[in-house]
Amino acid sequence: MSDLCLSEYIKDICERAKAAVPSIASLPESKKNAILRDAAKALIDNADAILSANKEDLDAAEENGVPRVMLDRLALNHDRIKSIASQMEDVAALPCPVGSGECFVRPNGLCIRHIKVPLGVVAMIYEARPNVTADAAALCIKTGNAVILRGGKEALASSTAIVKVIRDTLTANGVSPDAVSLVESRERESASLLMGMRGYIDMLIPRGGKGLIKSVVENAKVPVIETGAGNCHLYVDSSADINLAVKVAVNAKTSRPAVCNAIETILVHKDAAESFLPRFAEATGPVGLEIRGCDRTRQILPDAIPVTDEDYDTEYDDLIVAVRVVDSIDCAIDHIRRYSTGHSEAIMTSDIAAANKFTSSIDSAALYVNASTRFTDGGEFGLGAEIGISTQKLHIRGPMGLAALTTDKYIIEGNGQIR
Amino acid sequence: MSDLCLSEYIKDICERAKAAVPSIASLPESKKNAILRDAAKALIDNADAILSANKEDLDAAEENGVPRVMLDRLALNHDRIKSIASQMEDVAALPCPVGSGECFVRPNGLCIRHIKVPLGVVAMIYEARPNVTADAAALCIKTGNAVILRGGKEALASSTAIVKVIRDTLTANGVSPDAVSLVESRERESASLLMGMRGYIDMLIPRGGKGLIKSVVENAKVPVIETGAGNCHLYVDSSADINLAVKVAVNAKTSRPAVCNAIETILVHKDAAESFLPRFAEATGPVGLEIRGCDRTRQILPDAIPVTDEDYDTEYDDLIVAVRVVDSIDCAIDHIRRYSTGHSEAIMTSDIAAANKFTSSIDSAALYVNASTRFTDGGEFGLGAEIGISTQKLHIRGPMGLAALTTDKYIIEGNGQIR
Repeated sequence: MSDLCLSEYIKDICERAKAAVPSIASLPESKKNAILRDAAKALIDNADAILSANKEDLDAAEENGVPRVMLDRLALNHDRIKSIASQMEDVAALPCPVGSGECFVRPNGLCIRHIKVPLGVVAMIYEARPNVTADAAALCIKTGNAVILRGGKEALASSTAIVKVIRDTLTANGVSPDAVSLVESRERESASLLMGMRGYIDMLIPRGGKGLIKSVVENAKVPVIETGAGNCHLYVDSSADINLAVKVAVNAKTSRPAVCNAIETILVHKDAAESFLPRFAEATGPVGLEIRGCDRTRQILPDAIPVTDEDYDTEYDDLIVAVRVVDSIDCAIDHIRRYSTGHSEAIMTSDIAAANKFTSSIDSAALYVNASTRFTDGGEFGLGAEIGISTQKLHIRGPMGLAALTTDKYIIEGNGQIR
Repeated sequence: MSDLCLSEYIKDICERAKAAVPSIASLPESKKNAILRDAAKALIDNADAILSANKEDLDAAEENGVPRVMLDRLALNHDRIKSIASQMEDVAALPCPVGSGECFVRPNGLCIRHIKVPLGVVAMIYEARPNVTADAAALCIKTGNAVILRGGKEALASSTAIVKVIRDTLTANGVSPDAVSLVESRERESASLLMGMRGYIDMLIPRGGKGLIKSVVENAKVPVIETGAGNCHLYVDSSADINLAVKVAVNAKTSRPAVCNAIETILVHKDAAESFLPRFAEATGPVGLEIRGCDRTRQILPDAIPVTDEDYDTEYDDLIVAVRVVDSIDCAIDHIRRYSTGHSEAIMTSDIAAANKFTSSIDSAALYVNASTRFTDGGEFGLGAEIGISTQKLHIRGPMGLAALTTDKYIIEGNGQIR
């Protein structure tokens, strides 16, 4: 960065990224795949340099008292680098939507091709996970987009080392290295500056905690995709198979409580409460799940902590669950309509009418019948990879695969048609 | 509006529209089509009331010195009402994307349906064209969206009469009339208030002049689709068939100069300038086209007015064209990249390589080879109807048909799958 001030530095990165767009967008798919494979190999070849940068990050983080769970996300080792490289090879192997689409001839003879093309410049603001640096770069290279990465400051040395390897690979393949840029600044301000770069950034994806996403959605002046806010619900209908309901509820809440597709609130039909709740409490006791329940829940589970309206509105991302006994499926639907962030909801039922009512009345990205919400994920949906899970309605909702990184182009060929 | 203040009034409209969403979104297609046909009939049955409201608007507009061309857009008569009604019947006859999509089974047995669903509440801010009121309402009813219409103040009485007919039809069909609302306010502020209704409006479409669109894009806090900014170009390559080039250029510039898909600048290869320019000037003389040319253009057309950089940046929407002679296709591409709003551009050429270079290097919604830019239109592209032409990259780019009024929903059925 040297003597440039921060805003000049960010502008410079954006201008270079925009200038690099034709260089990356015009590559045939075979070339982009070759670059991804070269980069995967180069990551492994340069593992020592990456690990030494990662050690620098880890030492600093430990010194600054960064919590254990975050240190774990930050830490790399040879196996993790191999897995990052292999993910890059997986992306190379995916079919790519760029250039494909539909074509048709109009009655006047105009031949119209409606195809998918790269967006241009994609920016991503994320937290201290060096693997996201590599993943995001891979998905953008694959789709012919230039990308600007702004990761968490705790991972800056690791991300710098990873991006250096990718940029060197681009250069070696005759592509502008500015197609993949990292904001090498630990200043918070660098994120806000990026959000304001209208005319340079075609899509900004925030990925991380609720605070980060809220700040980006509210402050950005460039087009943003809202991702990952996940206040997810599971409703146990009166007709549910209780064995299945307990199994799925336990999985949806406790298998990975910190991720966005984990549930936060369980709604139980009053006729299922007596059989479901004690078994759910018993099954989740060993992992130490904290249950916060409504009055009727606490009549069945006296140890439950009283729940508040604020609980219903909270994405715990932790081993805590809110539980509410409801009189009917309509009450459950009303509750979800009121508190949901529109990510994923599940119903456990054996009644077709209840299943249809639930899936048609609730306006969330993913609605499950008799399965865990934990499947809302690009890989699980068969998209091959994902750059985030959109909880907004414009552009795309749900897991964002390669197609989410493209836009439309119409190419129309004629022989002198006028109107 | 009576004694409510304007902001309370707007909030009330938004709350009612949001509350009406389930009522309209849950209708089967046959019912929505029946409503559209009923509304079409009711518009004709109530033509006298609509025409008398329209006369009120016209009298006031004339008194206020509204320009002739605008009065013409505002004016209704029995034929125009018939054409509005028949457009509504056309929308009823279109296939609707809502509810359809793809479905697939994952290796773990989860059955995933990825379908299109209504967005929720669509808002539209537009100018004094009563036909837009009916068109927008029809497209939103067809796709199961609630719509909030805020048209130009000059057409308020006409729009009120049209919306009353549509709301009565909704009520008669057992659907909440709040699925179609009109902001019955002449105050400018009502538009700004709408733009800020985050959490109520899922998509806001500004439709009209450049000033309106710019104001909405810059000030809105709700998701916006940028439409219709059209600084469009036509490039005459050295290899162009000059007869065809003159015919297409004349059409693209003069057939309807005020619309967004008309061209504003013609770029001519230096080797084609001597043959193209005099014939173009001769062909457009009778309609009074004003040519503003670069120095080299003025050597060939001495009567042309000197062009400025500001001209290149201007969407005239009028019988004026900027003309620049360029040394190569690369110069033409550079010019378009710099000045285009990303709407539509055309190349006249007989050279495949030039055509491919032009269509692949320029990042606009529609790129034409040997045809007029005037075809960028939902109807001409075979979408059946359009609610606007998007010049942004997120969600949709190009003419926006029914699919643009939908978002994604995943419905996943399992039998107890956990992850």
